Amino acid sequence: MSEIFKNHIEKFIKINVKEFEDIFSFFQLQQVRKKENVLVEGNVCKYHYFVLKGCLRKFFLTEKGTEQTTEFAIETWWMTDHISYERRLPSEFFIQAVENTEVLRIDSHSQEELLKAFPKMERYFRFIYQRAFAASQMRIKYLYDLSKEDFFQHFNKLYPEFVQRIPQHLIASFLGFTPEYLSEIRKRSHS
Amino acid sequence: MSEIFKNHIEKFIKINVKEFEDIFSFFQLQQVRKKENVLVEGNVCKYHYFVLKGCLRKFFLTEKGTEQTTEFAIETWWMTDHISYERRLPSEFFIQAVENTEVLRIDSHSQEELLKAFPKMERYFRFIYQRAFAASQMRIKYLYDLSKEDFFQHFNKLYPEFVQRIPQHLIASFLGFTPEYLSEIRKRSHS
Repeated sequence: MSEIFKNHIEKFIKINVKEFEDIFSFFQLQQVRKKENVLVEGNVCKYHYFVLKGCLRKFFLTEKGTEQTTEFAIETWWMTDHISYERRLPSEFFIQAVENTEVLRIDSHSQEELLKAFPKMERYFRFIYQRAFAASQMRIKYLYDLSKEDFFQHFNKLYPEFVQRIPQHLIASFLGFTPEYLSEIRKRSHS
Repeated sequence: MSEIFKNHIEKFIKINVKEFEDIFSFFQLQQVRKKENVLVEGNVCKYHYFVLKGCLRKFFLTEKGTEQTTEFAIETWWMTDHISYERRLPSEFFIQAVENTEVLRIDSHSQEELLKAFPKMERYFRFIYQRAFAASQMRIKYLYDLSKEDFFQHFNKLYPEFVQRIPQHLIASFLGFTPEYLSEIRKRSHS
């Protein structure tokens, strides 16, 4: 399983076997059962998660009490509530496993120690954050620009396996509409 | 003016005078007149901008032809269209000066050279992207969660000088409503 993480790091920087072993020692492996929460609103988000297998989602409870999903993370994606994680503030989010999931986790103190011990990991994380930020800029544009239906079509085109894999009510929650409406759109787009 | 940039870098990493001079040599200074575009939709966004003085905004044209502002950058903030800048793709955005503005700019090739020459700048940019990503995650939550009026109140509370400084029609464009509606909300919140 640690090969997945090593391969991901090597997409961005060169590391040897010994370095990877040392880097890996900063992380803990965690198994998360389907629907288990690794973060609950009101708690500090202690960890930054790297998904080895499975899928996490981040959501918050709206005033009406419904779950609004804002983010998914599948294999090789990172997830945390950054503001809570960095500033140790109570989180406004939940992080929950969509499937049985295996993650690597690191706390913010250890991440800082890791970066001190291996400055080359600054480059790795710089790429991770840079790409995440670029994607979120487009996301913000779509939230302003696209109708909910167009957003779904766009999402479906970009990430077809993702839309097949994730339960429909969670896709609906991410896109901000009801499962019934999603089902209607899917029927229309197939006809 | 270059002191602003040096001070900003020193918030995150230590550099000496000689190092800063070398780092600074990767950048070009540019004066941008109020309402001048440094990026036009359809062109590749060649530069990453650091604002020394003034204010930039990023916007796109909606299908109805109105300008939807998605981002502002004032002193010490960075701005670019990341996807266009990194992958050299045509941009879907405009970047325009809100006031007479002075920026440092760097192209993506030079930024990569800078990072090779000064690996410690990886740490600086890692912080820049990390913070930008954290802010955009909260932004996405607000876009889902808050009514337009609540979003304005929140924004006004967090950035009061900003709301005073930026022309009202641009604040309205950022928040996604008409200047008339903004004026109404402001009256209500003062009464």
